[in-house]
Amino acid sequence: MTAGPEASGRFVVLEGVDGSGKSTQVAAVADMLRAHGREVVTTREPGGTALGAGIRDLVLGPSTPGPAGVQAWAEVLLYAADRAQHVAEVIRPALERGHDVVSDRFLWSSLAYQGAGRNLGSDDVAAVNSRATAGIDPDLVVLLDVPYEVSCARLTGRRDRIEAEPRDFHERVRAAFLDLARRHACPVVDASRDLDVVTKEVRELVAARLGVSA
Amino acid sequence: MTAGPEASGRFVVLEGVDGSGKSTQVAAVADMLRAHGREVVTTREPGGTALGAGIRDLVLGPSTPGPAGVQAWAEVLLYAADRAQHVAEVIRPALERGHDVVSDRFLWSSLAYQGAGRNLGSDDVAAVNSRATAGIDPDLVVLLDVPYEVSCARLTGRRDRIEAEPRDFHERVRAAFLDLARRHACPVVDASRDLDVVTKEVRELVAARLGVSA
Repeated sequence: MTAGPEASGRFVVLEGVDGSGKSTQVAAVADMLRAHGREVVTTREPGGTALGAGIRDLVLGPSTPGPAGVQAWAEVLLYAADRAQHVAEVIRPALERGHDVVSDRFLWSSLAYQGAGRNLGSDDVAAVNSRATAGIDPDLVVLLDVPYEVSCARLTGRRDRIEAEPRDFHERVRAAFLDLARRHACPVVDASRDLDVVTKEVRELVAARLGVSA
Repeated sequence: MTAGPEASGRFVVLEGVDGSGKSTQVAAVADMLRAHGREVVTTREPGGTALGAGIRDLVLGPSTPGPAGVQAWAEVLLYAADRAQHVAEVIRPALERGHDVVSDRFLWSSLAYQGAGRNLGSDDVAAVNSRATAGIDPDLVVLLDVPYEVSCARLTGRRDRIEAEPRDFHERVRAAFLDLARRHACPVVDASRDLDVVTKEVRELVAARLGVSA
């Protein structure tokens, strides 16, 4: 992260589509870092704060309003508001205390889902988010990549408003994530494999990138 | 408004601090326009849509979260999300149907309360809002100006999170509103006078500016 010279915590983000196993890998990475004596905060977007939980309810349900739904730019701005609160209330304070932060989603999710999925353009979505991230940048983003069929099969039960979008939406999201990983030279993990294999690979590459032994 | 050549509705906004009498004047302006045979939609920010009502609850209560409250940029982004939904769901469709829209607050409130009141800077707040307003610009903004003592005395009972800010916050907000009115050559009405006097003046100046008889 880029918050200042005294900050020593590391900021790791797990990104990917719904059903890619991010929350499981957040816990695995946190366990690995804690086993190396580090203090770790695990969190997520949206909903990593009390305000964010309210925003999450509005944007993903159960409080999502009636037939008019959520307009595309309102969706971008709600996720950015969640992120502004998350950075200021959780991420920055933890990093400044020297704690590591492992988050399920961060900025890339807005670029992929709203910039690409909703066709709003990554640059415009990034511009709105610059006030939300306020200079906080992950030390490492790990992309958990799964094909549409796999993520679909893993989503059982009722889908939220975004999960229920059609296949071409989700294909644009996946392609945008892969493009972001390529441009930022971040690791892409094939998360369609067995959980044990994926977890081992994620732990090893996070350890290598952060300079701790896996 | 600037939505296209076929649009014929007029967009009038009443701005001012809490306790300046905006909601009363919104109703008076709407009555005057209806008396001239126009179709009028009255609305407000935040909370002019179902989604906006949820956002209003989060930002002003009763659903405002605990001790961490709402961070300044989260507040900007929540109001901008409310505005994006309001423009797309209410304002633009009404104007495109040829109906007039009279709103209690619009963009200036964000510039005054967050840009000036919270010291975030009007340009940065305007930049975030450019995606929310999406080219919709009021035909007329009327500023209802009242000194701090008057607005304070009119706010009875429990105050919301923003009303409870200290005097210097509210003085910055009032000064920013006056500066916006000056720069945009919009009318400023001394709203500390008797209601009948204020209402007559507001109706007459809206009629004159929109080219209908008061």
